[in-house]
Amino acid sequence: MPKKRVVIALGGNALQKSGEVSAESQKSVAKQVGALIAKLSSKYDIVVAHGNGPQVGNILIHEEQAASKDAPAMPLETAVAMSQGQIGYWLAQSILNAFSKEGKTKKVATVITQVEVDKTDPAFKNPTKPVGQFYTEKEALKLAKEKGWIVKEDSGRGWRRVVPSPKPKGIVEKREIIDLIKSGAIVIAAGGGGVPVYRTKILRTLKGIDAVIDKDFAAEKLAELIKADIFLSVTAVDNAFLNFGKPDQVALKNLTPKEAEYYSRQGFFKAGSMLPKVLATTEFAEKGKIGIICSLKNLEEALKLKSGTIIAK
Amino acid sequence: MPKKRVVIALGGNALQKSGEVSAESQKSVAKQVGALIAKLSSKYDIVVAHGNGPQVGNILIHEEQAASKDAPAMPLETAVAMSQGQIGYWLAQSILNAFSKEGKTKKVATVITQVEVDKTDPAFKNPTKPVGQFYTEKEALKLAKEKGWIVKEDSGRGWRRVVPSPKPKGIVEKREIIDLIKSGAIVIAAGGGGVPVYRTKILRTLKGIDAVIDKDFAAEKLAELIKADIFLSVTAVDNAFLNFGKPDQVALKNLTPKEAEYYSRQGFFKAGSMLPKVLATTEFAEKGKIGIICSLKNLEEALKLKSGTIIAK
Repeated sequence: MPKKRVVIALGGNALQKSGEVSAESQKSVAKQVGALIAKLSSKYDIVVAHGNGPQVGNILIHEEQAASKDAPAMPLETAVAMSQGQIGYWLAQSILNAFSKEGKTKKVATVITQVEVDKTDPAFKNPTKPVGQFYTEKEALKLAKEKGWIVKEDSGRGWRRVVPSPKPKGIVEKREIIDLIKSGAIVIAAGGGGVPVYRTKILRTLKGIDAVIDKDFAAEKLAELIKADIFLSVTAVDNAFLNFGKPDQVALKNLTPKEAEYYSRQGFFKAGSMLPKVLATTEFAEKGKIGIICSLKNLEEALKLKSGTIIAK
Repeated sequence: MPKKRVVIALGGNALQKSGEVSAESQKSVAKQVGALIAKLSSKYDIVVAHGNGPQVGNILIHEEQAASKDAPAMPLETAVAMSQGQIGYWLAQSILNAFSKEGKTKKVATVITQVEVDKTDPAFKNPTKPVGQFYTEKEALKLAKEKGWIVKEDSGRGWRRVVPSPKPKGIVEKREIIDLIKSGAIVIAAGGGGVPVYRTKILRTLKGIDAVIDKDFAAEKLAELIKADIFLSVTAVDNAFLNFGKPDQVALKNLTPKEAEYYSRQGFFKAGSMLPKVLATTEFAEKGKIGIICSLKNLEEALKLKSGTIIAK
């Protein structure tokens, strides 16, 4: 029987311990994740997608703060590709090492992934996603003028650049990722929601654009296009909850897509946090597949449908 | 007849116009290279390796200059992975766009590549490769103490960190790269000489190490391990020369490995410039294959053995 094909979207807590941002600390977190992925790969064909919020944030801060004529800052879309290299390397090495420790080998590949968005996506008219460092109002307005940035005041903490967060429409490297899975590799792809690109009107060429694609939506699109059986969004909590954090919170175990949609519409899930995970897993479940939200520690049980929030028709 | 398998090592001038380091300018250079690679791929299976000197240099400068407790600098080995993502994304997109313009599609994948070195390589006892920004003597000695760096005065221009430049011993992702080629993809791999890693003694796990692997040596090792037929080192000049730059310079057209070795030993080629290209292509030719040094504009003719310096038994 062929193995089930699984896309695992790793949230920030699977990449960093809270506040520990050194390469050494992030590698030690990757080691735990790598051991788990290696273990699961005996039963499943696995593609790992991952977030990149703090990592690309720090890349942007470095690029912007130390920019000069001789060493200009790279744009956000290129910085996403850089973060894919960075995190993909850490994860791939960790997975390989989990095999080495048992005297085994395994194919593991990090594929730099471009994710196609629609230039007419309404998100481009209303950039909402803050990226990079904080500025004073004066600095921010100057940069807005110089670089064409949209800047906004961020919750009393200062001014920041905001970028659009469009929906993913396609995964440029989907065929290459499928080929690698078929040849027996664990694949790391669509990191940080992918490098955002759009197709130009006449020639249909790809062009990078400064935006941030939600990593759960990108991972779901990837899961869909590579015909995965299960899509998991791994986060800091064991389930999606109703009334999360309140005395009457209720862990959600099994949901139909219709139930999940209802709760989403009713505002039970926090925007930018649990909501995109529920929306992405629900979208996947609507196609007759299985969407799961779970914690890293419950990942193995969740794949057996014994833990987490399972969304299926 | 199956296509000939070719590894093309792109030097700095195939990635940047002299002194133009903005993302926009580098992308426009990548566009030319992408068009050429796309054209050649109808006749050859192609793996593109590339340098990363100025790119990883700027990443290091940004990482070091703007480092803080909340956004610490990434180590060199991780910065190499970042530069692979950056340059790989630009090249992959350029190649894909060359196909799009003709209404065609093609598989293209950038694989983040770890290159194994030997911890006992004598290079680790004598770091020689300057990386990152210039410091004053006082700053440099302070950083040496704080971070365990080796620092050296660099030709009267200031102090810099120096790192070892060990020989590549293996390509961690070689099987994944072969699978991608076999499935019809153009592969971008071993960028910047690869992320330098070594195997720990007892568990044989991989561990990153701050070093710079010569990109021609890494590309040659890759060419060897994936059983390529031809290895090309693409540089700014059309050939390797005897007495380069002098009135009596002689362009070398066809060499046996023995001849190439002789000229190398006699000091005809500049260390850190033409010498590693001659050594790498010669090493490949010694295995009964074809090694070529050529310019980008002559790449197509060189593949037909009608241009460049052809090294073969």
